Amino acid sequence: MVGSGWDDAQLPRLRRVGVVGTGLIGTSIGLALSAQGVEVLLRDADEAQVAIAAKMGAGHPWAGERVEHAIVATPLPTIPGEVRALARAGLADTVSDAGSVKVRPLVEGVQLGCDLSTWCPAHPIAGRERHGAVSARADLFAERVWAICPVPHTGAAALHATVALALACGATPVRTTPQRHDEAMATVSHVPQLVASALAGVLVGLSPGEVPLAGQGFRDTTRLADSDAELWAGIVEGNRGPIARRVRDLGSRLTALADVLDAAGADEVTAAVTRLMRDGHTGRALLPRKAGATARSWGWVGVVLDDRPGQLAAIVGLISAWDVNIEDVGPFEHSLDAPAGIVELAVDPAVADSLVDRLTSTGWTAYRRS
Amino acid sequence: MVGSGWDDAQLPRLRRVGVVGTGLIGTSIGLALSAQGVEVLLRDADEAQVAIAAKMGAGHPWAGERVEHAIVATPLPTIPGEVRALARAGLADTVSDAGSVKVRPLVEGVQLGCDLSTWCPAHPIAGRERHGAVSARADLFAERVWAICPVPHTGAAALHATVALALACGATPVRTTPQRHDEAMATVSHVPQLVASALAGVLVGLSPGEVPLAGQGFRDTTRLADSDAELWAGIVEGNRGPIARRVRDLGSRLTALADVLDAAGADEVTAAVTRLMRDGHTGRALLPRKAGATARSWGWVGVVLDDRPGQLAAIVGLISAWDVNIEDVGPFEHSLDAPAGIVELAVDPAVADSLVDRLTSTGWTAYRRS
Repeated sequence: MVGSGWDDAQLPRLRRVGVVGTGLIGTSIGLALSAQGVEVLLRDADEAQVAIAAKMGAGHPWAGERVEHAIVATPLPTIPGEVRALARAGLADTVSDAGSVKVRPLVEGVQLGCDLSTWCPAHPIAGRERHGAVSARADLFAERVWAICPVPHTGAAALHATVALALACGATPVRTTPQRHDEAMATVSHVPQLVASALAGVLVGLSPGEVPLAGQGFRDTTRLADSDAELWAGIVEGNRGPIARRVRDLGSRLTALADVLDAAGADEVTAAVTRLMRDGHTGRALLPRKAGATARSWGWVGVVLDDRPGQLAAIVGLISAWDVNIEDVGPFEHSLDAPAGIVELAVDPAVADSLVDRLTSTGWTAYRRS
Repeated sequence: MVGSGWDDAQLPRLRRVGVVGTGLIGTSIGLALSAQGVEVLLRDADEAQVAIAAKMGAGHPWAGERVEHAIVATPLPTIPGEVRALARAGLADTVSDAGSVKVRPLVEGVQLGCDLSTWCPAHPIAGRERHGAVSARADLFAERVWAICPVPHTGAAALHATVALALACGATPVRTTPQRHDEAMATVSHVPQLVASALAGVLVGLSPGEVPLAGQGFRDTTRLADSDAELWAGIVEGNRGPIARRVRDLGSRLTALADVLDAAGADEVTAAVTRLMRDGHTGRALLPRKAGATARSWGWVGVVLDDRPGQLAAIVGLISAWDVNIEDVGPFEHSLDAPAGIVELAVDPAVADSLVDRLTSTGWTAYRRS
């Protein structure tokens, strides 16, 4: 999909970009563009957020200068109004937005009289549980997809500027349509969000003694439930049609599964669950590997560290002294009560085994992670 | 809950333990116990798994020696038979098991004539997506809950040996009953597993161009869908009653939500989604912090590293030279194509700000993570 629908030679080199909405997404865009030498101008209804974003290096307060391209990264319901305001003030040659839903803001934009030829709808698919300018980071979009969702009215200049913006942020532009975007996002984002919240909410009904039985799997499955309620209420309302169909379908499938669990023989239950899980395996296997993960596959070496100062420095220094480059570091795994922890280090797979041998013979406890 | 229902002074010091089933769980138990100086004897229907486990240091092949305590860590449907076989052979003074479901194996065990006085049902709540002895690790149970599920028939010796085993593996023993365990696990483990698989399976129906729109949230929410289908079919069949009730309830709630999305006004939709998400927040807030996380709250300092050899060694060495202890390391966040990456280091919160200042004045790009 990359590059489809535009001529790379026609992509502009952006020099001055406006960002409306300096939350997590807008400020991260500002940081990424500023790192590329683009002049970034920032605007937000909350001037404190602009000040933080500017201090972080995401750009400068926008005093009304004209920009080549502006991106609207405000909450979903406010997007059409912000796009129209930019056009009325004549502040930007072209505009895109970062909304998680594409059809509804377009329809509302048409009703408001927005010029569709200069507005290319788009959606950088990245986020964190933390919000606001302070949570922004320049690499938020690295290796992420940036959905580019033009309509037939969208002019080439708006399309090209939006693609150039996505590329400048390190993202992979993927062209689709507003309708297809919203249908797909209902499946891969909006319904999982609602289900994660529903699963997490059930904890409230447990007795306090039962809650500790929730393990890492529960935490991962419900992580999305930490997302902002107000933001998500707007997203779900904005894409209610596609979401309703999928929520209803999932509800029916679960009810049918409950019928099998209640009434069927053991073999039939086993077959139904196995089928459900195998479909899940097939679905997961379709997920693209991260760009980086395909590019290189590291050898992981685990080392046991005593829980005292200087251990990490010692092991990293030793390995570097052996001219072995550490490509990545896994999180510490240790109990703070325990006398030792484990750190896993990624190295060239060709040297991983000999590194383990060398560490072991030097007195460290090391292993090759399978 | 820790310590409730047993007298710590009565806990035995285990010297010789048998492990039946040298997959991920059994081999990890062997590694943890061996690290504590316990003699561990290993048995598995698959002798290759025993050989791997032994080579990893989890213990030695079990040739029929009598042990003080044996733990059965085989697939759920085989547990009652293995418990009975141990008793018939007179191999162990007491027995526990590691099954994810507790009532069904007990009922089947009674039908097989197992001695309930020497068998304490238990369940270490830990796991990974990877399976088999090779994926085992000594710290798999560190800071994890080990559910101890005695029945009135359970003898004190079996209870005490099982608690001692859990503690020796670094886990937190939590006492409950088989019934309460199964009800709670249906909520926090079995239903989330089925839902994760159902969500992941929907990807199969997307067009190839839509799949890349799945972001990190989808990956996290569906991570459990990678679990072993055969293993899980047995677990779900073994706890079908409690699971069916919850699956039916979730199905009804989703159908009701779809009705709201289809027919209600915007305000009503917004209110329903907000309510669902706030309940999710409340549920997530009930999750205990990891034992280590409650004990200390670190200050996180991010540092931008050039993507060239020795950068991590340089920063870690520098910080150590300043007598600041690095308590934890976050995963590298970087694009492999980008010239820089970010590593986040946990330090005493009292020194985090001054560390950022010091790093900045030394020429590094550093920030305090909010």
